[in-house]
Amino acid sequence: MATERLVVIGGDAAGMSAASQARRLKGPDELEIVAFERSHFSSYSACGIPYWVGGDVPERDELIARTPAEHRERAIDLRMRTEVTELDTAGGRVRSRDLESGDETWTGYDKLVIATGARPVRPALPGMDAPGVHGVQTLDDGQALLDSLARTQGRRAVVVGAGYIGVEMAEAMLKRGYEVTVLNRGAQPMATLDPDMGRLVHEAMDGLGITTVTGAGVTKILTGQDGQVRAVATEDAEYPADVVVLGIGVEPETTLADAAGLPLGVYGGLLTDLAMRVRGHENIWAGGDCVEVLDLVSGRERHVPLGTHANKHGQVIGANVGGGYGTFPGVVGTAVSKVCELEIARTGLREKDAREVGLQYVTATIESTNSAGYYPGAARMTVKMLAERRTGRLLGVQIVGREGSAKRVDIAAVALTAGMTVEQMTALDLGYAPPFSPVWDPVLVAARKATRTVHGSAT
Amino acid sequence: MATERLVVIGGDAAGMSAASQARRLKGPDELEIVAFERSHFSSYSACGIPYWVGGDVPERDELIARTPAEHRERAIDLRMRTEVTELDTAGGRVRSRDLESGDETWTGYDKLVIATGARPVRPALPGMDAPGVHGVQTLDDGQALLDSLARTQGRRAVVVGAGYIGVEMAEAMLKRGYEVTVLNRGAQPMATLDPDMGRLVHEAMDGLGITTVTGAGVTKILTGQDGQVRAVATEDAEYPADVVVLGIGVEPETTLADAAGLPLGVYGGLLTDLAMRVRGHENIWAGGDCVEVLDLVSGRERHVPLGTHANKHGQVIGANVGGGYGTFPGVVGTAVSKVCELEIARTGLREKDAREVGLQYVTATIESTNSAGYYPGAARMTVKMLAERRTGRLLGVQIVGREGSAKRVDIAAVALTAGMTVEQMTALDLGYAPPFSPVWDPVLVAARKATRTVHGSAT
Repeated sequence: MATERLVVIGGDAAGMSAASQARRLKGPDELEIVAFERSHFSSYSACGIPYWVGGDVPERDELIARTPAEHRERAIDLRMRTEVTELDTAGGRVRSRDLESGDETWTGYDKLVIATGARPVRPALPGMDAPGVHGVQTLDDGQALLDSLARTQGRRAVVVGAGYIGVEMAEAMLKRGYEVTVLNRGAQPMATLDPDMGRLVHEAMDGLGITTVTGAGVTKILTGQDGQVRAVATEDAEYPADVVVLGIGVEPETTLADAAGLPLGVYGGLLTDLAMRVRGHENIWAGGDCVEVLDLVSGRERHVPLGTHANKHGQVIGANVGGGYGTFPGVVGTAVSKVCELEIARTGLREKDAREVGLQYVTATIESTNSAGYYPGAARMTVKMLAERRTGRLLGVQIVGREGSAKRVDIAAVALTAGMTVEQMTALDLGYAPPFSPVWDPVLVAARKATRTVHGSAT
Repeated sequence: MATERLVVIGGDAAGMSAASQARRLKGPDELEIVAFERSHFSSYSACGIPYWVGGDVPERDELIARTPAEHRERAIDLRMRTEVTELDTAGGRVRSRDLESGDETWTGYDKLVIATGARPVRPALPGMDAPGVHGVQTLDDGQALLDSLARTQGRRAVVVGAGYIGVEMAEAMLKRGYEVTVLNRGAQPMATLDPDMGRLVHEAMDGLGITTVTGAGVTKILTGQDGQVRAVATEDAEYPADVVVLGIGVEPETTLADAAGLPLGVYGGLLTDLAMRVRGHENIWAGGDCVEVLDLVSGRERHVPLGTHANKHGQVIGANVGGGYGTFPGVVGTAVSKVCELEIARTGLREKDAREVGLQYVTATIESTNSAGYYPGAARMTVKMLAERRTGRLLGVQIVGREGSAKRVDIAAVALTAGMTVEQMTALDLGYAPPFSPVWDPVLVAARKATRTVHGSAT
């Protein structure tokens, strides 16, 4: 058999999982694998950056799952600090530039994997590029932030954005001893939750000593005479800052794909089929933060940049490229996070998501505890559940509470995948023992209340 | 409408949940409710007894969810220390005896709920009734044990049995400063797990300083000249004991029901329909530890004495008795526990359960961690998964590990209820963030390995 060449653009989770899985299925005599990565790092956990910056993870290299050398030992020709600058699908080749030497090369492919990831949203505001303003998307970004902190005298940090990255970075900066202000454009932090649940996060952040300013759209970054950041301005006020962390989300990095005419969705992410093959392109696959995924609850494509999906995509792509078989059916929108001891979780649709796709729903919110009420350390857990009007089909769950809250959302994630009704959920045989749950698990209590609400009567 | 009378036999979880739910749906003018309880306590958490004995829960009364007075305030005529001694289904009446006065009374019923619970298995061995030998099934039992400990000088405790109650009581006695020996008839503790997983529990118990003797069938209890327990004998050895705790499981308490000719299953539990009505009896319901329940995975009835099921049964019975509607479809066999920091969980079928019902299966066991490997405190978690041969349908999961292990079994409990295959499980959208999970949740890792094993090839 002639040797085929697989080219992978992007050396992080999706790209290198695809390469590794393909290599497991096909040896170097059957499949040559060339991968390009523009940064200094491969196969690392970007999700771990807040914990490295905060000091929980002492060494950067602990975030690296597999080094370039380890990939090369497995016969993957991983070219670091090499950026792909053009994709020629008609010619079946990519042009790359060595970022150290500036040399450019064309490399032909039989099969191509696009795993170019996401780029931070960076509004074009005055001062955005000033020293002391940092994104935290890549290990390079994290290193730059830490270097900047080491040089900085003052202890005032402003975090822009209060989504997952924002709240995790607020915790990280608090742990490093900074006085932390979070500026959030919306009415409540964690816009991935409904505002009533976001309010619980806001209250907890207040309790931690994090100043959260809501309705605070940033208008510019102010710098001092040394050019260094000195404050963040909104329409209403100025917030003094010795360092600014941007946590305002990411968007698919699909510049290359767009230029090559590949199909993009409404969020700018690549569109694939269930096998993660780019629609209409027999020999091109895409995965990770640069693609859109099917939301199984709403039936719409969404952009969900998460390491766990990227790894699954890579696995599926590698299986298909390597002659095996795999599919990625879609997501239900599960996400978990924490701010210090407060755990935050969601899956499925928020109220506004349901409305947007034409679903009518009822909601039920309950308060319970993470263990039997009499067990030492029992602490509050709030569960909000959305169910479709009349059918009672589960549409979404949000949980805010102490230890044991976040991963309880997995119960709902599986139930959503299975298309269960909230009434079916009331009979779920969930683990019960006093250290782990009240005799009615909080998710069951929510399901019971949602069921009563759906039926509009006692059950 | 004429007033109907509901009689409830048993004042703990199932009985009083049924009474309370029926009362919510029907006022005293429509439904009179009389409940009989032979002990000193109503509506308490028997599952909490080990934590009360161990000192985690300082006061007995914290285990009581609702006192007799609280029930009476809600127009439930709860008669404490009153034992039902005869059930006359033809006459629609029960005979009860006031255990204080000895007075006997017949009480007629229109509707009857049997919630007589379970009784500890107490082998008829010499010395079993000696002072210092204690069961821990009821609050009365727990109080007797604590009173006995207060009188006892020595610090040697022998726990007979290494199931849930046994290991939880071993932890409790350890926390009270006792030197603890657990005598276990089987080859490994936690016979509710497969032996390979039970071995992990055994190793952890060794590490905690609990002496676990396996293959140790107790032959008699030895007493001193004062009549007090002094040792526990097996065929091979004698184990000195100042106190003995029996943790050898329970069996349905259905003496009354059996005498009345009600239908019992192979485990001696009452047989009901989906609405928890006793089969063949229009006006009798039963729930809690005295019934058998359908195992949705094996299709067989089982006896699963657990507070969480008892509460669900009570809820369903109360709804149906009160003119509403509810069913209890069955269980998948979920149970969680812990010994100090070690968490133990299972759901679905063990290998021997699968064999017994004629299912052929594959197994996959994996080791992972409870958080991202680089996150501080990441600790080992072992997951074993059983899947049906060829179809790949999930049959069961067992988990042993540190914090965050036990409740992960809920993922599998929902997947079992939904009839998912292990391959479908590999795509589950489970919560991921470094403090809560590796990027591949341990359950997903097990599902991937099980999928490969089912297909007998790489995927």
